[in-house]
Order: sequence, then structure tokens, then C-alpha cells
Amino acid sequence: MTKVIAINAGSSSLKFQLFEMPEEEVITKGLIERIGLNDSVFTISVNGEKQKEVTDIPNHEVAVKLLLDKLTSAGIIQSLDEINGVGHRVVHGGEVFSDSVLITDEAIEKFEELSELAPLHNPANITGIKAFQNVLPNVPAVAVFDTAFHQTMPESSFLYSLPYDYYKDFGIRKYGFHGTSHKYVSQRASEMLGRPLEQLRLISCHLGNGASIAAIEGGNSIDTSMGFTPLAGVTMGTRSGNIDPALIPFIMEKTNLTAEGVLNVLNKQSGMLGVSGFSSDLRDIEVQSAEGNERARLALDVFSNRIHKYIGSYAARMNGVDAIIFTAGIGENSDVIRAEVLKGLEFMGVYWDPALNKTRGEEAFINYPHSPVKVIVIPTDEEVMIARDVTRLT
Amino acid sequence: MTKVIAINAGSSSLKFQLFEMPEEEVITKGLIERIGLNDSVFTISVNGEKQKEVTDIPNHEVAVKLLLDKLTSAGIIQSLDEINGVGHRVVHGGEVFSDSVLITDEAIEKFEELSELAPLHNPANITGIKAFQNVLPNVPAVAVFDTAFHQTMPESSFLYSLPYDYYKDFGIRKYGFHGTSHKYVSQRASEMLGRPLEQLRLISCHLGNGASIAAIEGGNSIDTSMGFTPLAGVTMGTRSGNIDPALIPFIMEKTNLTAEGVLNVLNKQSGMLGVSGFSSDLRDIEVQSAEGNERARLALDVFSNRIHKYIGSYAARMNGVDAIIFTAGIGENSDVIRAEVLKGLEFMGVYWDPALNKTRGEEAFINYPHSPVKVIVIPTDEEVMIARDVTRLT
Repeated sequence: MTKVIAINAGSSSLKFQLFEMPEEEVITKGLIERIGLNDSVFTISVNGEKQKEVTDIPNHEVAVKLLLDKLTSAGIIQSLDEINGVGHRVVHGGEVFSDSVLITDEAIEKFEELSELAPLHNPANITGIKAFQNVLPNVPAVAVFDTAFHQTMPESSFLYSLPYDYYKDFGIRKYGFHGTSHKYVSQRASEMLGRPLEQLRLISCHLGNGASIAAIEGGNSIDTSMGFTPLAGVTMGTRSGNIDPALIPFIMEKTNLTAEGVLNVLNKQSGMLGVSGFSSDLRDIEVQSAEGNERARLALDVFSNRIHKYIGSYAARMNGVDAIIFTAGIGENSDVIRAEVLKGLEFMGVYWDPALNKTRGEEAFINYPHSPVKVIVIPTDEEVMIARDVTRLT
Repeated sequence: MTKVIAINAGSSSLKFQLFEMPEEEVITKGLIERIGLNDSVFTISVNGEKQKEVTDIPNHEVAVKLLLDKLTSAGIIQSLDEINGVGHRVVHGGEVFSDSVLITDEAIEKFEELSELAPLHNPANITGIKAFQNVLPNVPAVAVFDTAFHQTMPESSFLYSLPYDYYKDFGIRKYGFHGTSHKYVSQRASEMLGRPLEQLRLISCHLGNGASIAAIEGGNSIDTSMGFTPLAGVTMGTRSGNIDPALIPFIMEKTNLTAEGVLNVLNKQSGMLGVSGFSSDLRDIEVQSAEGNERARLALDVFSNRIHKYIGSYAARMNGVDAIIFTAGIGENSDVIRAEVLKGLEFMGVYWDPALNKTRGEEAFINYPHSPVKVIVIPTDEEVMIARDVTRLT
């Protein structure tokens, strides 16, 4: 029996989940927010009860110490020696990492080199890694990448139609993200279907604030909607997804923004927020749409239209599909979006049951029994994937 | 019996085709190139024979005079009075024109306003219009737009996931192009299938140097791959099609190009030229690929992969498809691309015959007789569409 902690470090936050492995039992989980700011917030569940503390946490190392102190002081573990491994989410593994990896100094150097490709994420992930290294220097740690699962994509999927040197010289290609989630739900789908992954063609729809679709054939990602960055693909909460690239210079001219300024608009003021004009949160938009707000209705239409079309596209990529998976906040909980996305896919054998579709946040088949294509709701669990890889690699 | 001339004016060129209407008989056709440069070239077919003249043609008005003189001097027509109408291709009709229109001073003003949306094309088209107005002031003229056919797209198709004000204030939306071609082949498909357009779901693949795919339901375009400009959508000869928009600032930083400079790369040095590294011409690429050139093979793969996925996407858009159409230079002539694009669409009822697929440049069904989805090669004819609209509107 070993205990493993899964970490997702952001620039001012640290999400954690402590597992008993190999049972995959969650012992505790929580979140530290506003690190480096005043009034940092530390939330942790103790014996199933949420405890919240407000205090000043100047940096990630202090956050880690606070967390570990709490684990012992609250009696969640008896001693830090019980922690046998730490797993860190690292957003970008580039073409270097097609699997999770045991963290060494050499590995960290590579994560740092890859920061150029994920300037908002990798540096924060590395901060988290170093904080744990300093506090628990003798506990092995593993990095789990958002990109690794998609490294099986063939060149015809990942290459942009740009000068080929851009790929060779600058690493410009499609990487794809949410890989840990797509991998988790594809494995669960295989179990739920009682069929080996090798025989399955799956389309996984990870729909949260960020959203991406993946085509998974024989257990391998062969295409995905996000690209060089997580901006590409379908409409998201605040992100535009794909647009005509010629719009960037046009918007620059019209608004006097720099290219970076336009990129900021595409990342933070677009998507469902941009179309609806009032919220990036699907729940707000569903409420307003039901009350007759036309722009809210339009945001729903645009969002589901893009996902619907990706499903057709990826079915074509695999000459059909065995199951369509919905996961992440919206995918697990919004029957409205699932209904809109699934409407009109009978031509490819998708027959779904509006009654079963009412399900929320639980594993469930929502297709009619006779449907050749199964439709499955699967709550994602990136943390358990991290814990599993720690167990496997340490 | 009336004679109508169809004109496609570029910045230094003028393509023409003279029709006997309503018979739609082509009396003559040709091309004037290098207008405004030295050694302009005037090519015209007289009694089925191509004649070529090299001379200096300083501007479009001189080009028009030269053309009309030739029509009478070569005995193609007896007098200019026989020309009853002129039809002009105009690339961008914005949201103003959802159909062809009789050209008035007011209309020309609108074309000029729309030049902002098509700075490379509309000004040249307008130059052609004015040249004919000056030389044939009493002959009615009609403008036929590349965008008009796509004005039936619903908002969920044409709206980008950008701040909504960008649409209202700057006209930022998907317009789509090649509309005259998509409309022509969809009408021909209906005739060839012996079924009314109203009952058909069609996917039209216009594959030339520029390439676009359209979903046509009941005779109306409901989605198309090109966007605000003709850069968007699938891989083309030199154009990138869709890429992660975040790549533009990244490429700017890496190459020190301006946003306009990057746009120029995306328009002129990308697509199959960029991937193959040696040519934008599919014929060269097919030859090299057959000889084992891997980058040529990759260019073919990328190009056909993108089109294949759009077909799945648009089938999903219409809950199935009755016929897939191939047109324009590549679509009419390349059995290699058609085979790659069609491979693996059996899941949606597409069964095509490799033997029939060998056809080139002629109207032909290339599906097996039992295929629920028909696959049709149809040479496009934008000129006859222009002539028809002249006849209809004058």
C-alpha cells in the first residue's frame, strides 16, 4: 500500500488529491488559491468535511509545506514518510514526451525549454515541481503531460499547411491538449463497453471551459481539435476556436490592437462570452436562452454546431465510430448541449434517448439499446491518471 | 436570340466568353493578360482556332476596345449592337447582395464600399465594369457575386465565436466564396440525379488552386469552408486554410515578420507548396509522389485529409448526404485526390468505383450503382451562370 499525491499547479494555485494506491481510493483533496497574493485560501476535505482557511501564502513552497503540515496535523496521514510519490500535471511535453516521465534535473530542463510553447502553463507547473522537490527531496516525482496522449497522431493530422521549415525550425504543429482526460475516458469507455480498446473507434468530447474533441482509434489519439495552443478547435467559454486567420490583421487594423492584443481578445473575450455578450458560463447562458434571450440561444447554437461538425469530421476520419463520449463540466452535466450536439446524427448510426440524456455527473449510456453507436457520459478523472502513472513509474 | 458576354476582370487580366442566349452556345472565348505591362497577350478563339497577339495594352478600357474590334473584324459578330448584355464577376457582395444585380451607379458605389472586404479583387472587378461602361454605355450590365449563393447560411454557420460587436461594427463573419461554381454544380447535380434540388442534400467540393467545400441543402448553401476571406478552410495550392490563430503572433515573433507579412506567407507560401517545398501545382506533386518523394506524398495526404474531414463534417450538418460533387481543376481531373478523399466513407453510405473514378474533365457518376450516396464529377461553368443571370436580369 502506497500513498501518492497528484498535483496541478497554476501560477497562483495548487490543486491536490491524495490517493491510496493501487486501490485508487481518494484520501483527501483540496485546493490552495491566491498564492503570492493577500488572503490566500486553503481548502481541504478532512473526513469528508470541507475545511477552509484564509492566510497569506507567499509562494508555492510555503503552500506545499502548509499542505503537508495539515496532512499530518489533521491525522490524514501519520508521517510524511507515507507519501511514496508525487505526480505533477505538466501542460506541454512537446514532441519530447509521448508518455509520463520520472522527474530528473534533465527532465526539468526540458520542461523549461518547452515553456516557449506554453508560456502560461509550463512555468507554473515547474514552480509546483520545484516546491515539492525542496520540501520532499527524497520522494520520487512523475510528470504527466496534457499533450502526451496525442503524440500518436500521424503527420497528416498534426502538420499545418504552412512552410515545412516552420515545423522543423520552430516546432509549429498540432500538439493537442486534454490528453490525460481523453485517455482516461477512452479507457473507461472500453471497460463500460466490455470491448478491448484496440477494437474501438471513439470520439471523445471534453467540454469544459476549455473544450476539445479527439478521434481515438485502437486506443491511440489520431486527431484532435486543439492545435499548437489550446485556442484552436471548437468554440469555448471565452476562446474563439478556429477562425479565418486573415481576421487577425483585419481586427488589428480595425481596433488598433497589436497581434498580442488580438490574441488576448481571442483567448479571453471570445467564445460563448463573445457571442452571448454576457457570460462564458454555460449555465448562465442556458438559463437566459430558456428565458428567450436570442444572443444566449445563438451562443448555444454556435457552440453545439461546432462540436456536432467535429463529430462528423472524426467519424469520417475513422470510417465510422463505435462510441461518442461526453466528459468534463459541460459534457457531464448539460443535457441541453448533449441534445443539440447529438441531434441529426442518425445518418451515422447515433440513436440517443432523451430520457436517458437527463443524467448528470455520472457514468451512463444515453443511447437507445439498438443504437449501433453508443453514447456515453463519463466524468473525467485526470488525477487518478496521474496517480496511476506515479505508481507505474516509481 | 441575344448575345451576352461574361467577364472576369483581374488587376491585369480580362477573361471573356461570348454566349448566344438562351441557347447557352459559346460563340468565342479568350483572355487578355498583362494589361498595363509591356507585351500584353490577347488570346481569342476564332472559328475554333486559338489566335494569339502580343501588343501593349495600357489599361482595361483599351483591352475592351481591342476585344470588341476583334469580335467584328474577325466576323464573330457583325456589329456591336448584337451584344445585348454584359455580365461581370464581382468577388465580394458582402451582406448587401444575395443575388446578382443590374449594375447602376449606386450599385458600383456599394461594390467600392465592399472593396475593404476584398481589397485584391473588387477593385479589379470594378475596373472591368467601368471599362465596359465607357465603351458600351448603352448595354445593360449585371454583377454576379462569388459570395451571393452563401448568403442563405444561418447565423450559427456564418458567425465566428468572436465579440459580437465585431460582426455588427466591422462585418466580420463567414461570407464564403466560389458561390457561382457551387450553385452551378448543385443545379447540374439535380438534373443528373433527376431529383428536384429541394429534396437534395449535396456536398460540393470545388478543388482548384483555391478550394472550398459547401453544404447545400434544398438548393441553399448552409455552410462552407472558406470564411471572411478565401484563405480559410482546407489546404490549397499556396494557402494554408485553417490554422491555430495563435500561430500568427508566434510566427511574427519567430520570423520578425509583420502581421501582414505572415498573412502573405499564409496566402502565397503555404498550402501544398509549403508542405511539399517545391510546387503548388497538384500535377507536379502527384508525379513526384509517385516517384517516391515523401514530402510530395505528405502534401497529398494533408490536402485530401482536410477535404475528407469536411465531407464528414457537412454530412453531419445535414444528417447525411445524397450526393458528393467534385469540380474545378483538381476535382474534375485528379482521380488520385478523389480516391484519397473518398476512401473510408462507407460508414455514411459512400461506395465509389475505382474504375469509374478514372474519368477526367467530363460529367460522370463515379459511385457503384448500389451506393446510397452518389458521387459525381461535374466540370464547373461559372461563365454560363453569369450569362444566365444577364439574361434573367436585363
